[in-house]
Amino acid sequence: MSTPISERKLANAIRVLSFDAVQKANSGHPGAPMGMADIAEVLWRKFLKHNPTDPNWPNRDRFVLSNGHGSMLIYSLLHLTGYDVSIDDLKNFRQLHSKTPGHPEFGYTPGVETTTGPLGQGIANAVGFAIAEKTLAAQFNRDGHNIIDHHTYAFLGDGCLMEGISHEVASLAGTLGLGKLVFFYDDNGISIDGNVEGWFTDDTQMRFESYGWQVIKVDGHDADAITKATEQAIAETSKPSLIICKTIIGVGSPNKQGKASSHGAPLGDDEIVLARGELAWAHAPFEIDEEVYQAWDAKAKGEAQQKNWEADFEAYKKAYPELAEELQRRLSGELPADFEQKAKAYIQQCQDQGENVASRKASFNAINAFQPLLPEIMGGSADLAGSNLTLFKDAKGIETDADGNYIYYGVREFGMTAIANGIALHGGFIPYVATFLMFMEYARNAVRMGALMKQRVIHVYTHDSIGLGEDGPTHQPVEQLTSLRTTPNLHTWRPCDTAESATAWAEALKAKNNPSALIFSRQNLPHQARDSEQVANIAKGGYVLAKEQSELQAIIIATGSEVSLAMDAYQTLTANGVGVRVVSMPCAEVFTAQDSDYREAVLPSSIRARVAVEAAHVDYWFKFVGLDGKVIGMITYGESAPAGELYKEFGITTEAVVEAVNSLVK
Amino acid sequence: MSTPISERKLANAIRVLSFDAVQKANSGHPGAPMGMADIAEVLWRKFLKHNPTDPNWPNRDRFVLSNGHGSMLIYSLLHLTGYDVSIDDLKNFRQLHSKTPGHPEFGYTPGVETTTGPLGQGIANAVGFAIAEKTLAAQFNRDGHNIIDHHTYAFLGDGCLMEGISHEVASLAGTLGLGKLVFFYDDNGISIDGNVEGWFTDDTQMRFESYGWQVIKVDGHDADAITKATEQAIAETSKPSLIICKTIIGVGSPNKQGKASSHGAPLGDDEIVLARGELAWAHAPFEIDEEVYQAWDAKAKGEAQQKNWEADFEAYKKAYPELAEELQRRLSGELPADFEQKAKAYIQQCQDQGENVASRKASFNAINAFQPLLPEIMGGSADLAGSNLTLFKDAKGIETDADGNYIYYGVREFGMTAIANGIALHGGFIPYVATFLMFMEYARNAVRMGALMKQRVIHVYTHDSIGLGEDGPTHQPVEQLTSLRTTPNLHTWRPCDTAESATAWAEALKAKNNPSALIFSRQNLPHQARDSEQVANIAKGGYVLAKEQSELQAIIIATGSEVSLAMDAYQTLTANGVGVRVVSMPCAEVFTAQDSDYREAVLPSSIRARVAVEAAHVDYWFKFVGLDGKVIGMITYGESAPAGELYKEFGITTEAVVEAVNSLVK
Repeated sequence: MSTPISERKLANAIRVLSFDAVQKANSGHPGAPMGMADIAEVLWRKFLKHNPTDPNWPNRDRFVLSNGHGSMLIYSLLHLTGYDVSIDDLKNFRQLHSKTPGHPEFGYTPGVETTTGPLGQGIANAVGFAIAEKTLAAQFNRDGHNIIDHHTYAFLGDGCLMEGISHEVASLAGTLGLGKLVFFYDDNGISIDGNVEGWFTDDTQMRFESYGWQVIKVDGHDADAITKATEQAIAETSKPSLIICKTIIGVGSPNKQGKASSHGAPLGDDEIVLARGELAWAHAPFEIDEEVYQAWDAKAKGEAQQKNWEADFEAYKKAYPELAEELQRRLSGELPADFEQKAKAYIQQCQDQGENVASRKASFNAINAFQPLLPEIMGGSADLAGSNLTLFKDAKGIETDADGNYIYYGVREFGMTAIANGIALHGGFIPYVATFLMFMEYARNAVRMGALMKQRVIHVYTHDSIGLGEDGPTHQPVEQLTSLRTTPNLHTWRPCDTAESATAWAEALKAKNNPSALIFSRQNLPHQARDSEQVANIAKGGYVLAKEQSELQAIIIATGSEVSLAMDAYQTLTANGVGVRVVSMPCAEVFTAQDSDYREAVLPSSIRARVAVEAAHVDYWFKFVGLDGKVIGMITYGESAPAGELYKEFGITTEAVVEAVNSLVK
Repeated sequence: MSTPISERKLANAIRVLSFDAVQKANSGHPGAPMGMADIAEVLWRKFLKHNPTDPNWPNRDRFVLSNGHGSMLIYSLLHLTGYDVSIDDLKNFRQLHSKTPGHPEFGYTPGVETTTGPLGQGIANAVGFAIAEKTLAAQFNRDGHNIIDHHTYAFLGDGCLMEGISHEVASLAGTLGLGKLVFFYDDNGISIDGNVEGWFTDDTQMRFESYGWQVIKVDGHDADAITKATEQAIAETSKPSLIICKTIIGVGSPNKQGKASSHGAPLGDDEIVLARGELAWAHAPFEIDEEVYQAWDAKAKGEAQQKNWEADFEAYKKAYPELAEELQRRLSGELPADFEQKAKAYIQQCQDQGENVASRKASFNAINAFQPLLPEIMGGSADLAGSNLTLFKDAKGIETDADGNYIYYGVREFGMTAIANGIALHGGFIPYVATFLMFMEYARNAVRMGALMKQRVIHVYTHDSIGLGEDGPTHQPVEQLTSLRTTPNLHTWRPCDTAESATAWAEALKAKNNPSALIFSRQNLPHQARDSEQVANIAKGGYVLAKEQSELQAIIIATGSEVSLAMDAYQTLTANGVGVRVVSMPCAEVFTAQDSDYREAVLPSSIRARVAVEAAHVDYWFKFVGLDGKVIGMITYGESAPAGELYKEFGITTEAVVEAVNSLVK
């Protein structure tokens, strides 16, 4: 019998694969994978519950590499433990359409749970995973049936801890007592600009203790110490744990370890020769001992773990057949079969009732209509429940006991949004989050990350324009809609009344592969008349709301609160014999995705007398009105005053629309 | 002699003015002004060094109301202490074009140092004020001449502390040892959603101690205790201080105090009657006792303080005439008289030398050329100095001793940007800050706030497109340029070579009333030939870079790294006899602001065969190419691969431009 292979040697496999792949790509970050290799070896070989042959096993532990620039760490781990990530995939590190892009990208690589790179967001996603696990367990587990029961682990670096979002999510995780959440902090004292002492001197242990976390400090190169710390973290079930691992960045590189020079550039061929010597690693690049592979291989263990769980699930299914079926449905992401039909009926009901309410109120009504059909809805707001109108009738706040369906996120827009991305990635929930449209900006990059990862997260943004009135320019969106509409794979809906608001909600809930931003007014909006075809066409993103009464001469395009202005202008113009139609365009991106026949029917290309009206920045709308049309909207910031006065002040009026159309058709 | 008026009564004047003004406006937030009135009375009457008759006295203390929704607090203080804010101004609270908008807006009201409302940013501005004070003092004070010597005070609430930016800026303030910075935390336990216990359970004292702050806890309604705490804060000169003031929100309102219902809505007429009784306040709304006015009046004291300082300054001027003159110049915000001419010479030199370098390198060269002319430049980067190329030759990092001209901000984009707004507002500096263009999104709302406040902050954003290559879609901007370009009062420059980069820098430095975003490439860009008129026209934001060689048929519009593609296409098309011109448009907003003759000369309206090319989202460019033109750019996210491959993958090539033009002119 041979001597057991040392843990250090197993960790060195990560180090060597990492610096070799970075060298081959001539691009990447060797320092973090080398520095965290010992921690990774302990966590992945001794603790992580996962099955490389089924990366989607619902009860797996979740692992997040929040310092995503160290991507070769996770690629090495996935390769070594037996995921479908081959040695050739590692050789293709950072190449086009490879499984091993520069940063870990969700959907590209089996075993990558979330896309990371933008610092601090990975740990926020991890908090989302932990909330999802705890709440799903509270909703579905029954005595003796712990069907949902897994940990969430995240690696993070100094950068994640400097970012403000780390405060938001660590604070909330502490308040919620997320006992199955464990962070490993790569405390190497180095960031890109050098030794962090000049700009980062927090006592991180004290900081996390102030949030109610358990904090443990260890030598990040001592496998036994890391093992004990991890056990201690797992044993503490009422608090999240932070393990501060003192490490040396790029350890194993004789001349670059402990220095910023190992962080973000290849070590160089000469240094790699020296590092191979230092690590006593005799093999050529991308060659790994069979015994190293065997020691890392997690397939058999993972399959056995999953099989055990499947047996447990069978027992659960027998005891609670309906619950089990519902859990399976929720994990699949499919809506109940009758949702589509019930949603249609509700939309028609909105149309028939014809209420004149603020669209935020219409949104509230839609949530109350749809949430009973979709218990997977996980609501929330960044301390604006009463203003966003997001606290639905049967909402139950998630507290330390986790049995609920609504999260009081506090004033933490960025953390909220990145947590929601994590909840969606986990499965079992459709999260919605809410704030004022302006404060979307605090969360901006998390909105983008959800879109990049194709996650069904619903962003409820109320108080959408100068129409919010007295709070003034700091709160009045101008350029925000354009930013959202040009975000790939995000659908931005700005409905004009109850029927459009209900449609927007239904479309967002059905959109399995994209997030949606739903934009609502603070102020009341009049209801619009529609026949059944028009009601159905709302879902196409743009449609003819009012048809021309004589030969078509001009088109008015409007969204949200400005649709009623457009309709008033239509009445005046039609009475004056102008052949004008009104196109309501609640979702320009969805409209743009319709076939050209439909688009041409709504916006005939021969008609160049086009006026767009929206209480937002004008520039977006030239896409639809061209060089010959006009846009009535904002080019400056707003002001503080009652809403009605502001519309006049900024010239967004029925008269202005009439005048613009007249100037184009004569 | 009458009994001295009680401090409580003086504080009650704030309470009554606040709830009356909110009631009259039927909109606003009475809770915070009422809760913080006692703290404000102590700070403003006993400590704050200010002169109501000269709100711009350079050596005044700076006061920031970071919980800006409590705007009636500061308006009451400004009115009572003698600023040009009349009782009629208070009656016009939240009305159009009043001096008392819904949130404090810089430039609207004498004595308002910064616009607040977006939570957490006020305290970040305050950190900027404190850095500016300390560094300006280090640069200009001399033995026995403490010409720059003031404190910065900020009020903040739970919301500010939940926001991530509070972490970023408090952490940096602790590291820098900002001993003249004092925060007063309105610890009332209430946020909009109710009692914060469900979502905010930080031990804030421990948290700030972990950042290296002095923390003092007091009863926020005990004037003596607040006085002692403030003295203690001032006495600690090596650390910033946080005074945690336990308060009751809306105190004085018998039925609403201590409740969220006093936070963001008028108290109501009935409750106001009760509150008047509770506060023993017999006067009608907006009526104040003469003795109350007298006790609050700070004009005489302020004028005397300023006079003393002016005498000190005269002595300083005698001892150090050149320094004094330079300080006055810097505080005025005027550039040295010869800057314009030297900048022009440098731009011409760039044109003549014709280097082919990355525009981030061109930016680095420009900083090195201009910084010696402008010692007011205060550089910085969010831990990307080596990538952004922002660490100029004579850069000296600001540490605890403050004598420097460069800030190592750490990985704190949002904090950095809001701090820079504070530095600009303080006066004496032109701050620039830097990160990757993608991570502008982390700082998004602070970019907007700087534009709203018309502050000269220069944002250096490198790695501006898929051209950054292997880091992949998390790092590759697509929609960010559109977001910046549609931000009112922000100028976004995306230069194509060294001459355009130098011009962008010069224009940004000269722009006294707007921030600029300078967008630079990671990859090398070829130099373009220009005659002297073309060199001068760069500053107009858009100009003809290559003139048609036969009758004009088509226009290619390009920016930054895509200008060279456009020029290559121009060569091919011209050789084929197509009359095409290339318009380089480094700053579309500045071009749009040119007179119509110039715009028409560059983009003749009769020419509809227009192709725009930019490695960013296409939608923005329809403003210039209309319904008949074409845009070559991005509509999806990028990928991880070497840059050259990505341009091909996404079809942003010379061939595509040629084809597009050909399809339009035939």
